[in-house]
Amino acid sequence: MLSNRNLIEFTKIKSLQLPLDFHKGKYDTENLKAHDLENEFSLLIEKGIARENEKSLLEQVGPRITKLKFGNVELETPIFMPVGTVGSVKSLSPEDVYSIGYRVILGNTYHLNLRPGMELMRDFGGLHEFMRWPGAILTDSGGFQVMSLAKIRKITEEGATFANHINGAKITLTPENVVEIQEDIDSDIQMVLDECTPYPATHAEALASMERSMRWAKRARQARKKLNRAQFGIVQGGMYGDLRVKSIKQLIENDFEGYAIGGLSVGESKREMRRLLSATIPWMPENKPRYLMGVGAPDDLIDAILLGIDMFDCVMPTRNARNGSVFVRSSAAPTGKIQIKNSAHKSSREPLDSQCLCYTCKNYSRAYLRHLFVAEELLVFRLMSIHNLQFLYDLTHEMREAIRSGELFHSLPDIRRKYAPGSV
Amino acid sequence: MLSNRNLIEFTKIKSLQLPLDFHKGKYDTENLKAHDLENEFSLLIEKGIARENEKSLLEQVGPRITKLKFGNVELETPIFMPVGTVGSVKSLSPEDVYSIGYRVILGNTYHLNLRPGMELMRDFGGLHEFMRWPGAILTDSGGFQVMSLAKIRKITEEGATFANHINGAKITLTPENVVEIQEDIDSDIQMVLDECTPYPATHAEALASMERSMRWAKRARQARKKLNRAQFGIVQGGMYGDLRVKSIKQLIENDFEGYAIGGLSVGESKREMRRLLSATIPWMPENKPRYLMGVGAPDDLIDAILLGIDMFDCVMPTRNARNGSVFVRSSAAPTGKIQIKNSAHKSSREPLDSQCLCYTCKNYSRAYLRHLFVAEELLVFRLMSIHNLQFLYDLTHEMREAIRSGELFHSLPDIRRKYAPGSV
Repeated sequence: MLSNRNLIEFTKIKSLQLPLDFHKGKYDTENLKAHDLENEFSLLIEKGIARENEKSLLEQVGPRITKLKFGNVELETPIFMPVGTVGSVKSLSPEDVYSIGYRVILGNTYHLNLRPGMELMRDFGGLHEFMRWPGAILTDSGGFQVMSLAKIRKITEEGATFANHINGAKITLTPENVVEIQEDIDSDIQMVLDECTPYPATHAEALASMERSMRWAKRARQARKKLNRAQFGIVQGGMYGDLRVKSIKQLIENDFEGYAIGGLSVGESKREMRRLLSATIPWMPENKPRYLMGVGAPDDLIDAILLGIDMFDCVMPTRNARNGSVFVRSSAAPTGKIQIKNSAHKSSREPLDSQCLCYTCKNYSRAYLRHLFVAEELLVFRLMSIHNLQFLYDLTHEMREAIRSGELFHSLPDIRRKYAPGSV
Repeated sequence: MLSNRNLIEFTKIKSLQLPLDFHKGKYDTENLKAHDLENEFSLLIEKGIARENEKSLLEQVGPRITKLKFGNVELETPIFMPVGTVGSVKSLSPEDVYSIGYRVILGNTYHLNLRPGMELMRDFGGLHEFMRWPGAILTDSGGFQVMSLAKIRKITEEGATFANHINGAKITLTPENVVEIQEDIDSDIQMVLDECTPYPATHAEALASMERSMRWAKRARQARKKLNRAQFGIVQGGMYGDLRVKSIKQLIENDFEGYAIGGLSVGESKREMRRLLSATIPWMPENKPRYLMGVGAPDDLIDAILLGIDMFDCVMPTRNARNGSVFVRSSAAPTGKIQIKNSAHKSSREPLDSQCLCYTCKNYSRAYLRHLFVAEELLVFRLMSIHNLQFLYDLTHEMREAIRSGELFHSLPDIRRKYAPGSV
């Protein structure tokens, strides 16, 4: 188990500046336009939010390796973090997740607060011991679940009141009690309560929502009792770059241990998401972890890493796996995806991905996995989840090593073709 | 994977004769009456099936250790065999099953024939490779599933015709094609097609059904093409001891590599099952494996091992686990059972069974398991199944070691109290 924990330790290991020809569009894809960085900055100057001399911030934008340390647990970013909603990365044991290489997983504040509840969390001294996870844990704020799961809800300045999705009982989450819950969970990285701005929203709606989230962030920062756990602020602002910049500037005043981008991957286009990342990232502190919430598609990971994001989470790899859908390298399927129930795999003695070294690919054929899936055998959900998590681990590993060697921009087209052929 | 396979090698390691005071009832339980052995024998003499001078057969009845060898896989009996219905011991990986200590699992002929089908089995060279199981495999005959799963069925001298439970297509299983299917599966122990006599049945019905099964057994023996795999005959005869003896005598004429007792645990009382075992076992060859089909309750295992059964199988440990019910030693729960969803376990930091060394008990609290079960997290089905299989493994291991040391009858009351407190 994790010991000698204290505040997250953050070290920058290596960073690359986006090369000149990147700005000229050499590495552009349909979604990521390198010149967005400059365009978005110009818009901020027009609106009086940025000054010309702040343009040097753009030079700091680029992919990087950082080291995060939580007590005896150490890891390098960029990383993906598997989601263990109610204290279990769905269908997997802690060993399954750890042995792929993962060292941080997510727990969901909203879910854990409902079940098993905080009395048990306190009894066990936190989620690590309860679920026997030897790595670090990040807990989200609950804000996203209030929006996506609760049928009836009311947001006031005080917090969010809603009927929970299990028994309909009325619950109020406030910036303060969300800190308290996370301190009971004893997570290593705790997220402040935010309102995930509805999509779409007008500029005025997004502004009001963002400003409330920023007031909540300040209250959350003041509510802490355990000062030896990291707390991250969350940038909001809907689909408006100027609001995103206002948001990060206000957050920084609270000196959080890290900064997250929330409210993306909520229905907007990939193009839109990248534009907003381009607007926001230059303003995020260089010496703190940067976390893009709820994002896990291979092409999104690649592009966001290029812009300097360190951390990601998403239910997609494990949820897709349970639906029979896995990511594979383009050498295994030109689309980068396999739907295992497809009859094309009926007699295939091939693994899901012959270049993958996961437990599943080392041992099982597509024919066997398809058979288990059709027969609804529980083992298949575990096997497919292991593979999808290995895939995202390998992707971030390859990006990391390419940053370390300085060869990332050279190898980028190959990495894209290999891991995200659909986006090339 | 299993290599150098050939016919099962059978070696008797140690056997104990039931002690004199056993016959006097010293170890009787409500269900197992030691004097059944003599009573049932007397009835056979009355009916003209046994002769007085055959009474010495009773002296051979008693618990034993045997060694079974399949190529490079070796194991000692008595053993329980987990059921991997369609090519997966439900919710577990082959490693999970193997690392508990299991070396033989079951596959279901009826199910595997429907899905994934024999074309795939032939492609893969059998089930071992398809499911990546490094131990031995026993396949049942399909007879039991025809009776329990198929809605419409017709039994003729030729075989059993029925509408399968998946898509209703008409299928005929014959003694010959069941041999063929099992040769495609390439199982190490193949069971002959039998009719599992309905319960209850009159003596005349049970006789007719048994005699047809014996004719089928003979046909199955003659239908083999692969002579290097073991084939077991199955004793039938309903609830009639005299029919059971007639059945085993007819089976022996075919010189099978082993003999199974079928058609028990179909609704009769435990008392009745033991009476029939007492009638049958004295007549089963001493120098061949004896297998009691479909039996897995701890008290049934103990009593049948006492009478000389070597092998068992049952879906109960894995099915119960998925329903939240586990076996535990009486020190962990006076009844020998825990229903994990019971609120008594809500805050329990105890493992399921503190004397158990399984992966689940070494790592997880009842509170965590209960939480996973209530939240319907897939991990819990695996964890509970591992525990239940470890429990039955430990039970047979303890019986085996007590036979080896010669102390079994001395320690029997303790073993019963420990593993099957409900039956004491």
